[in-house]
Amino acid sequence: MEESNHQKHTVQPNKQQLLNRLKRIEGQVRGVHNMVEDDRYCVDILNQIAAIQSAVNKVSLALVEDHTHHCVANAIKNGEGEESIEELMEVMKRMVK
Amino acid sequence: MEESNHQKHTVQPNKQQLLNRLKRIEGQVRGVHNMVEDDRYCVDILNQIAAIQSAVNKVSLALVEDHTHHCVANAIKNGEGEESIEELMEVMKRMVK
Amino acid sequence: MEESNHQKHTVQPNKQQLLNRLKRIEGQVRGVHNMVEDDRYCVDILNQIAAIQSAVNKVSLALVEDHTHHCVANAIKNGEGEESIEELMEVMKRMVK
Amino acid sequence: MEESNHQKHTVQPNKQQLLNRLKRIEGQVRGVHNMVEDDRYCVDILNQIAAIQSAVNKVSLALVEDHTHHCVANAIKNGEGEESIEELMEVMKRMVK
Repeated sequence: MEESNHQKHTVQPNKQQLLNRLKRIEGQVRGVHNMVEDDRYCVDILNQIAAIQSAVNKVSLALVEDHTHHCVANAIKNGEGEESIEELMEVMKRMVK
Repeated sequence: MEESNHQKHTVQPNKQQLLNRLKRIEGQVRGVHNMVEDDRYCVDILNQIAAIQSAVNKVSLALVEDHTHHCVANAIKNGEGEESIEELMEVMKRMVK
Repeated sequence: MEESNHQKHTVQPNKQQLLNRLKRIEGQVRGVHNMVEDDRYCVDILNQIAAIQSAVNKVSLALVEDHTHHCVANAIKNGEGEESIEELMEVMKRMVK
Repeated sequence: MEESNHQKHTVQPNKQQLLNRLKRIEGQVRGVHNMVEDDRYCVDILNQIAAIQSAVNKVSLALVEDHTHHCVANAIKNGEGEESIEELMEVMKRMVK
């Protein structure tokens, strides 16, 4: 996990898997766009949106897991845990909101 | 709200607004895809994902509101409320899950 | 569903079941209180809290379902649906938040 | 954070505050119980339940924060981070569900 001067950078350990998931979600959103254009029944559209929310949640959790195993754990080992844990808690609060 | 034989159809009252929102969400997902490709810091990516989740939630709630005001209300007025309310509750359970 | 002058009243159709569930949740909260007093491990406590959240969610959904089947449906039949649906949507937004 | 042989124990750093919050939540649940007994209007009851859910969420987040700052951080420093982070992620998944 290399940290550049002006802006932190992180090479995700499951980068390709994340990219594939995001591509699929992008396609799902386009799919819902088409359903609205085609005046599909509201509940059919809502069911597709629920599938998008679930997929986005999974990406979010996968990222948090990798972040905690690497960035947060390394920060703690280097004696900089406090700030990193606060940052993690802010992320969690938004996810649980 | 016209209902075709083989498959229910609904012209959304705020159709263009919904389509614009979905286009924006599609762009946001592409943006997160680029952030992962550019090895951006996990928390920056997670913050963008939280923004997507919030936007998707708003689309979902807007659709449920229109659906309840039109499809569900009409079904109740036509004496077919039971089934329509059950359907609405299933949507809600998935949203609250 | 009788509506008194100064304040709406609703006799819940599943009143006793709701009361039993609420009694159980009250006991669960007391149980977590005891776990904190006994310095039990955080994750054990958190698991119990997750069970409380799930039980409270179920009570909430049961109430919304009965409310929609009765109060909202009656309001729609009596031509007062708009306000009642708005009220339902406010409840939903808080639940989905 | 002392760990006994047969069962982990954790003295919560904000123990009294947690106990007070849980006492208040217990009272709120009893309050909802009385509202149902008094046939209060569904939406008034649902609003109180939303307040309980919010209070329970706050207790949960406070516990996770303390747990991460102490138990998880110590486990990482002692080279036992993997398991502790997995445990934390399971807690998070239930909270985000």
